[in-house]
Amino acid sequence: MSKPSLKSYAQLSGLAASDVRAAIRQQHWQSATAGLAPGFVQVNLVVLPEKEASEFHRFCLKNPKPCPLLAMSEVGDPTLPSLGQNIDIRTDLPRYRVFEHGKVIDQPNDITQYWRDDLVAFAIGCSFTFEHSLIEYGIGVRHIEQDIECPLYRTTIQTGQAGRFHGAMVVSMRPMKAADAIRAIQITSRFPGVHGAPVHIGDPALIGIKDITQPDYGNAVSIGADELPVFWACGVTPQAVVEESKPAFCISHFPNHMLVTDKRNTDYSVL
Amino acid sequence: MSKPSLKSYAQLSGLAASDVRAAIRQQHWQSATAGLAPGFVQVNLVVLPEKEASEFHRFCLKNPKPCPLLAMSEVGDPTLPSLGQNIDIRTDLPRYRVFEHGKVIDQPNDITQYWRDDLVAFAIGCSFTFEHSLIEYGIGVRHIEQDIECPLYRTTIQTGQAGRFHGAMVVSMRPMKAADAIRAIQITSRFPGVHGAPVHIGDPALIGIKDITQPDYGNAVSIGADELPVFWACGVTPQAVVEESKPAFCISHFPNHMLVTDKRNTDYSVL
Repeated sequence: MSKPSLKSYAQLSGLAASDVRAAIRQQHWQSATAGLAPGFVQVNLVVLPEKEASEFHRFCLKNPKPCPLLAMSEVGDPTLPSLGQNIDIRTDLPRYRVFEHGKVIDQPNDITQYWRDDLVAFAIGCSFTFEHSLIEYGIGVRHIEQDIECPLYRTTIQTGQAGRFHGAMVVSMRPMKAADAIRAIQITSRFPGVHGAPVHIGDPALIGIKDITQPDYGNAVSIGADELPVFWACGVTPQAVVEESKPAFCISHFPNHMLVTDKRNTDYSVL
Repeated sequence: MSKPSLKSYAQLSGLAASDVRAAIRQQHWQSATAGLAPGFVQVNLVVLPEKEASEFHRFCLKNPKPCPLLAMSEVGDPTLPSLGQNIDIRTDLPRYRVFEHGKVIDQPNDITQYWRDDLVAFAIGCSFTFEHSLIEYGIGVRHIEQDIECPLYRTTIQTGQAGRFHGAMVVSMRPMKAADAIRAIQITSRFPGVHGAPVHIGDPALIGIKDITQPDYGNAVSIGADELPVFWACGVTPQAVVEESKPAFCISHFPNHMLVTDKRNTDYSVL
């Protein structure tokens, strides 16, 4: 079957969230979702069989900073009605990763063929939500300014274990001058549902990052001599945890290729 | 006239705010006020003749982080009824500094002899208020742990000029691990009336501090290799501004020797 022609970012960027999802479902868009449907919440995805799902649910409760849980599907149900009309998590993300025993076995644009009646989907908050707010408040977000993907790093910060799920936290990094970093801490503190305040600021070595110029996911960004790296817990953490904890089966979004929902970013501001 | 015998900290530390003021008025206490009347707000003092007072009032409006104005006296009136019963700012601070043309000419324990009918008193919020909250939240405040005075530094951060009043900001510094610094930014953001969130974090040189081990006022504190210095705007700023702006006459509190009021620290939390 031949694929439909892909659309440009310009064609999609003005669309409402539901139209962006429709374009992705029709495979008109297979790239990162940053900047699409501005103002609307994008989420990280984790899909697990029911038994592991209950352990992972506890893992989210224990680790609200990397895994702020916004919604969960019924068993075998690929919809997430609380996040948007007609969401089908099997088709509505541009790219996925399929894991068996902690190893990536496929990175498809659609997971219909992998769907099973015992699967449960978890929608986890994403920092895109607070980035929108940072920019509104006049704080530059370097990877957006440089039009590249956000740099993500594995750290030595250990998550709280729940059942089989354990492992190190993944963080995103945004370099800022001190005054902007302080303001960014205030702004992101209002968004506990999308990682909230940073988990670290300053020396990367203190959280086990040996080389800040070599992110584990995404792209490296420049850091000025008068800037501090500021680190937020990241929704890619579950993928690192799955690689370490090796459940028999798991599906996630492909990093930076998120589910676009009908919720507004402002819905997740607690103040 | 012989002075009454001075009391010990232990004798005063359990007293209510009004009793602490009474002991200070009777010159039973002539030292720093940190830790006295815990839970009650202490304030910085600036006293100026009416004409300069109106300029200084505008200076406070322009510089709310170093000069958060909590109360102002009527012209010639040494009371501050909105801050406490029977406050007499001529006698109720343990030590003062008297300036003429920007030079300190006296550091008395009582300013009754200097009081004039044209003087106006300004009560400016003090970081003691948020320190109380930091400790309540389990965040160590180094100079309190070390039982010394808070280190204060002149910076190259310029205040906004109003009339004759201009000059560089003075900051207080508390070293913290990154996670505590992030939490401290959240906590102090709730207290805009007592300097609010920090003005800087990290490299002292970026705000013109050449040697962090040599504070301009107070005492040096140790900084761990895994800690960041965190800097808050300080109510000693007006004293540095008076030294630079050289009004004919001014009285201030002696650094760290504050007015103890009847207001509760919690009265100044906006959330």
